[in-house]
Amino acid sequence: MSAGSDANADLKALIRTIPDFPQPGIQFRDITALLLDGPGFAETVDRLAVLARPMAPDLIACVEARGFLFGAALAKELKLGVLPIRKRGKLPGQTVGVDYALEYGTDRLEMHAHDLIPPRRVLIVDDLIATGGTVMATAELVRIQGGEVAGALFVVDLPELGGADRLRQAGITVESLVAFDGH
Amino acid sequence: MSAGSDANADLKALIRTIPDFPQPGIQFRDITALLLDGPGFAETVDRLAVLARPMAPDLIACVEARGFLFGAALAKELKLGVLPIRKRGKLPGQTVGVDYALEYGTDRLEMHAHDLIPPRRVLIVDDLIATGGTVMATAELVRIQGGEVAGALFVVDLPELGGADRLRQAGITVESLVAFDGH
Repeated sequence: MSAGSDANADLKALIRTIPDFPQPGIQFRDITALLLDGPGFAETVDRLAVLARPMAPDLIACVEARGFLFGAALAKELKLGVLPIRKRGKLPGQTVGVDYALEYGTDRLEMHAHDLIPPRRVLIVDDLIATGGTVMATAELVRIQGGEVAGALFVVDLPELGGADRLRQAGITVESLVAFDGH
Repeated sequence: MSAGSDANADLKALIRTIPDFPQPGIQFRDITALLLDGPGFAETVDRLAVLARPMAPDLIACVEARGFLFGAALAKELKLGVLPIRKRGKLPGQTVGVDYALEYGTDRLEMHAHDLIPPRRVLIVDDLIATGGTVMATAELVRIQGGEVAGALFVVDLPELGGADRLRQAGITVESLVAFDGH
């Protein structure tokens, strides 16, 4: 596991902390400065690709909206397709959905009903893992639809919130590039 | 302009039409089958890159959520940064915003207030152009913040809705990969 290693200190320096967003007490880890930095963004996607290849995925699932940024760029790098996981009512075709608890409330994630026919080996990508609620819901969707979860991959891990441990207890391989202490 | 050319018939075949979504009378052009197809998605991004290079951008702006998928993958391909344009209240830092009319209602787009200091030459990327409201609002945001609009680039153009013409009348170079008749 490479989370928090010194090798990624250069990327970590591009992630700023904004206190009390979206609610008081939350330390929001903001990846927009990293996105704005062309070499930094390309390096981030390249390092995600290094972690992704051993998981041998054949499809990249990513959760709207920030997950789309890293998931789609990684999919292109690996020449894989993208399975967009969306909030309620956004997908135009027939959907299946899972309700889940967010760090800041509750929500529902949906995917198109026939996107994993035939079954595929799906890597779940998001910008950040906190409590792991969205990723657990995405893994449940993938499995309900007959897919296999190849693993879960993040730019930022907040290990004190326990999401990565929760995923590992559910049998999911987890990797991330950088870790931050606290919330 | 390459919109609707036979060269992109293979990509066009991956875009399905879903009637009456999200409202009766709307023919929704759904790019999720194209996303799921690894070679098709990679080819789409490569063709977007061919159209993007002559516009000489140094930053890619994309609008959540579907625009993130193509914009971020293109940015990685071109080794450029990503300027995420988001709906109201999603960005954690100080923002500037523009209200605009959607095809299906009204909304507000925001960006971080200091992301174009120093000024940059911004290519706006989205999955689809219909009436052009979101792209006009994005161009206004970029210009208000001191940036230059390098152009606007889409996977799908719906020319009968007039968005591309509207952008050109505002002095914006417009390119797209495929065009569909009707709404």
